[in-house]
Amino acid sequence: MSKPTAIIAIHGGAGTILRAEMTPARERSYLDALGEIVRAGQKLLAEGASALDAVTEAVRLLEDCPLFNAGRGAVFTAAGTHELDAAVMDGKSRSAGAVACVRRLPNPILAARAVMEHSGHVLMAGEGAEEFAQSRGLPLVEQSYFYTDFRYAEWQRALQLGAEASREPHGNIGTVGAVALDAAGNPAAATSTGGTTNKRVGRVGDTPVIGAGCYADHHVAVSSTGMGEMFIRLVAAHDISAQIEYGGRSLQEAAEYTVMEKLPQIQGSGGLIAIDRLGNVALPFNTEGMYRGFARVGDTPATAIYGDKH
Amino acid sequence: MSKPTAIIAIHGGAGTILRAEMTPARERSYLDALGEIVRAGQKLLAEGASALDAVTEAVRLLEDCPLFNAGRGAVFTAAGTHELDAAVMDGKSRSAGAVACVRRLPNPILAARAVMEHSGHVLMAGEGAEEFAQSRGLPLVEQSYFYTDFRYAEWQRALQLGAEASREPHGNIGTVGAVALDAAGNPAAATSTGGTTNKRVGRVGDTPVIGAGCYADHHVAVSSTGMGEMFIRLVAAHDISAQIEYGGRSLQEAAEYTVMEKLPQIQGSGGLIAIDRLGNVALPFNTEGMYRGFARVGDTPATAIYGDKH
Repeated sequence: MSKPTAIIAIHGGAGTILRAEMTPARERSYLDALGEIVRAGQKLLAEGASALDAVTEAVRLLEDCPLFNAGRGAVFTAAGTHELDAAVMDGKSRSAGAVACVRRLPNPILAARAVMEHSGHVLMAGEGAEEFAQSRGLPLVEQSYFYTDFRYAEWQRALQLGAEASREPHGNIGTVGAVALDAAGNPAAATSTGGTTNKRVGRVGDTPVIGAGCYADHHVAVSSTGMGEMFIRLVAAHDISAQIEYGGRSLQEAAEYTVMEKLPQIQGSGGLIAIDRLGNVALPFNTEGMYRGFARVGDTPATAIYGDKH
Repeated sequence: MSKPTAIIAIHGGAGTILRAEMTPARERSYLDALGEIVRAGQKLLAEGASALDAVTEAVRLLEDCPLFNAGRGAVFTAAGTHELDAAVMDGKSRSAGAVACVRRLPNPILAARAVMEHSGHVLMAGEGAEEFAQSRGLPLVEQSYFYTDFRYAEWQRALQLGAEASREPHGNIGTVGAVALDAAGNPAAATSTGGTTNKRVGRVGDTPVIGAGCYADHHVAVSSTGMGEMFIRLVAAHDISAQIEYGGRSLQEAAEYTVMEKLPQIQGSGGLIAIDRLGNVALPFNTEGMYRGFARVGDTPATAIYGDKH
């Protein structure tokens, strides 16, 4: 069996992205950012990088881009602070690393990678995670690093809306993630988020929960985005793998079943990106839009926001 | 189809429980505690309690018993502190709640239940979780509440052994959990732990990770114990459900496959307790022993420590 072509897919969050509120200039800035980052991942894979390195770098770039709700540009908690989560998983070794509720790490994905490779653990939370990351040479920043006018205004609107905050059109969108298959045929996944606008201090969503917001094994790599609580309850990312491994389903069938059938059953909304070891890609979402892109090595990258199927 | 008889199973941890180091008196005290707690759960189910209430109460009792590494009797971190994790999941509604890295809650399982029912979230960590629990009327305690001579001595031995701490015979054993099926045919699961002796501050194991250390849906309820990192990487608890749902396997086949085949493939050790909606129970472990017990309503409870199969 010949090796499939290496491929990377990325997302920048799923949700109610109202076309009416999206200016052409803003739409262009999202598509440009997605295109630039997916090309960076594609280039790494073309040069022979592992899927693990490609997804780590793609998510690091997404964290650094203030348009997305991860790293710089993270949303505000109910206390006006920023608390970030991230996870990474290597399908080849089935190793994983994750951090939850970190406040001082500009790139939580690099801390998740350090947890995976150097801590002997999989998941670390809070100040303990920050201190471990610092011990591995990663920088700490002040909370002001994460500030953006856009997210601050979003938080202020959420405070005014109170219990109706969840109806805030742009609220909560922007979790980022990447999945890749490398030239050696190994899948990997990475996810990073600032969580949900006006969330309770201490709330952790699906992002750092291996099997929910991030998962990879020999079969697939999956990164989720949306109402995190529902993805945790469905163990959504692992559910894709299990349908393939135990049910003999295709990647597309499995991804559609989890996102389009199981998620709505518990009033969950969102989407995910998934690749399998054959190089297939699935990008299902049950929301108005999902910031996304993918690129096979040697092909022109594709990016999209709304429900125009690839 | 007639309803199956209600049943509850509990565990108090799996690991290297050397017969040579276990005095008859100590063995008796574990078996007595397991017997008393499984009977309390059995009585609740006989009175018509939900599986959710039965597992919550069984785990609360296990947390209060200083023999086990959860609540009072929790192990020490590398900093000489106690950090606890817990989770609960209701198979009927597929709702879940969990807390991670909490230091001041005498019964983390009650906080997990409060997160599930009153926070709008699934997972909360650290001080944010403690403050939420307090806002729901749950008490806070000082760290000294968790102290036991036994765990302190265990930590001192771990410090002396350093990197060899993981070979400490009794180290890390004692995570607790319960699974139940109620008279209405609904499964539920709950798990609670103090983690691993001498763990890094901020380390979170599989216990509060829904799908790894705790999981329930319409098919099964599962509570895991052992090397938590390996259970996270396998998404072990959800893996049992997926084999039944997508692979058509029996509970026993699924549980044996995950614990006896997949776990050793990544050098993982431990066990789990699982029940299905037909009232079957599986208690597999790949270690020398697992503190465990189960009781069907109307039947004599059974308890065991070593590898004598039920």
